[in-house]
Amino acid sequence: MIDLDDVGALRRNDPQGMGERIAELPWQCRQAWEIIESQPIPADYAQADSVVILGMGGSAIGGDLVRTLVRDLCPVPIFINRRYDLPRFVGQDTLVIASSYSGNTEETLAAFREASRRGAKLLALTTDGELAQMAKNPLTFSYVAQPRAALGFSLVMLLGILTRLGFVPDPAPDLEEAIEVMKELGSKLREEVPTSQNAAKRLALLLRGKLPVIYAAQHLAPVARRWKTQFNENGKCFAFFEVLPELHHNTVEAFPYPGELAEKGVILLLTSRLYHPRNILRFQVTEEMLDRYGIAHWSTEAEGRSLLSQALSTIHFGDYVSLFLAALRGVNPSSVETIAYLKKRLAQA
Amino acid sequence: MIDLDDVGALRRNDPQGMGERIAELPWQCRQAWEIIESQPIPADYAQADSVVILGMGGSAIGGDLVRTLVRDLCPVPIFINRRYDLPRFVGQDTLVIASSYSGNTEETLAAFREASRRGAKLLALTTDGELAQMAKNPLTFSYVAQPRAALGFSLVMLLGILTRLGFVPDPAPDLEEAIEVMKELGSKLREEVPTSQNAAKRLALLLRGKLPVIYAAQHLAPVARRWKTQFNENGKCFAFFEVLPELHHNTVEAFPYPGELAEKGVILLLTSRLYHPRNILRFQVTEEMLDRYGIAHWSTEAEGRSLLSQALSTIHFGDYVSLFLAALRGVNPSSVETIAYLKKRLAQA
Repeated sequence: MIDLDDVGALRRNDPQGMGERIAELPWQCRQAWEIIESQPIPADYAQADSVVILGMGGSAIGGDLVRTLVRDLCPVPIFINRRYDLPRFVGQDTLVIASSYSGNTEETLAAFREASRRGAKLLALTTDGELAQMAKNPLTFSYVAQPRAALGFSLVMLLGILTRLGFVPDPAPDLEEAIEVMKELGSKLREEVPTSQNAAKRLALLLRGKLPVIYAAQHLAPVARRWKTQFNENGKCFAFFEVLPELHHNTVEAFPYPGELAEKGVILLLTSRLYHPRNILRFQVTEEMLDRYGIAHWSTEAEGRSLLSQALSTIHFGDYVSLFLAALRGVNPSSVETIAYLKKRLAQA
Repeated sequence: MIDLDDVGALRRNDPQGMGERIAELPWQCRQAWEIIESQPIPADYAQADSVVILGMGGSAIGGDLVRTLVRDLCPVPIFINRRYDLPRFVGQDTLVIASSYSGNTEETLAAFREASRRGAKLLALTTDGELAQMAKNPLTFSYVAQPRAALGFSLVMLLGILTRLGFVPDPAPDLEEAIEVMKELGSKLREEVPTSQNAAKRLALLLRGKLPVIYAAQHLAPVARRWKTQFNENGKCFAFFEVLPELHHNTVEAFPYPGELAEKGVILLLTSRLYHPRNILRFQVTEEMLDRYGIAHWSTEAEGRSLLSQALSTIHFGDYVSLFLAALRGVNPSSVETIAYLKKRLAQA
């Protein structure tokens, strides 16, 4: 087991530099905002009556986040499409944005082709691949990393598209705040900060050998999903997430009978002062109930004034936890051997 | 531990008759179709440019199912809203349908009030409560049961609303098929059928003391959620669900390191001949991988010709599994003591 205070050992466990990619998130967000400001977006796309974002995995989560963050602002509905096909309503008046880091995600390409056949207003967000070829004016960025480590680009460029088209007011002040909050938080979580002062290292130690289950609400619900997928991909660890208040209508009936989860499960609660007052109360009551039934749990309150900075800073925290979890489990946080095997196996069929 | 072949013991464990409610699902669906045909729905609601269904828990899942089932048919987008508030785009041109069995679900009432303030086109689906008072012409039904046991009403009445407004073609032939498939399946799963011939009893025995994780795609994704919530509420058991192909982009990286799930976890795969060919292949490859890494799994193929009958028959199966799981765990499948405590605790605040 790697000692989390042995920075050399942490670096040796991370030969492709996932730790550096994580540290770069604030920089990535600023870079993405500058890139999108100069990219070509047809002005008449502002007439779209709905937005559909195509993507899978690390390239889809930016869409989830943006959709939730602009929920109170955007006058048209936004959908995230994680399928090969498109819903019937997608047509000429729909803005379809394909997000694929590699540009070669088969589900995204299939749905993009269908959107093209239906005459939808098309945009493509990618580094390269078949998607860059197919799209007339792809919105491209360069960043050598795993798709999940390019979240700053996919999230902020999507936000930039919606801003340019007038669907949301200029988020630049919130983005500046988010970058500052992330920088400050990152300085407390990076590899050099010892466990005694590093909340991400301490949480990773708590989760060692455990099954994390993340609970969140509202703007942090897609952040809970991000934590789950980062634990999966960086930490090679099973994890699940659930959303409040929905889980109060079903999951809680299992609380008094935690046998099947008790030994391994740890509930992680992502809380926020910006939640609806009833949800703030619901989180408090959830903690009381978990205490009563002896179910291990841990909670953190999101940092930052805006929804955007709370979402981004909580993501930054979770990314670091997943990095240290990988070290404790002795796995390379960058590798995706199983996903690569799966793609090869599917290509042969 | 109750012997699943002791019908008397099963009945004693189920004093409020959840088993009977489950058995009634085909009848419920027919009844719901007849009721909705005679209820008042303003014809000009057909002009709505989007549909938002408000609901939580057992009253929301009908919306999830309908949204997925009419994905290829409905010319306007459909949203499920499990929150206190509404997205910005909801306004005069939105059809907002509140679904609450009791009519007193606080999240649903809050969102319905907001929809009313915004001048949305309103419908309410309920048995009673404040929702029935607030709505001008509530679409009501009578059925004494837990909300989750009234799924036939919420699902089929929603489908009926969309049909009456011309958003989807008449589903009556598919519904007839679904009712026949459920009746046939139910005759093989009911309490009197011994374990040796009863697939639901056998699956419940496999899941005893285990943590079920349900995988599905496309029209069965909301069915996976239904299984999860029925295991929670009827079985008082933790359970999770995930959706393909999304999980191929993250979860699979945990497969080679199943330590935290291996002892307790069982993956349940809901398959279908109606899936996209690539998803059919993805399920096969998933099973191969689970075998390779020694992760317990079990799969079933949905019965029926149409999406609707596949969804309803797989729900019927899962409902029976949850009933027998309750018996094995010695818990009353109808009770919701923890949800009731939570409501009381929240009411005091």
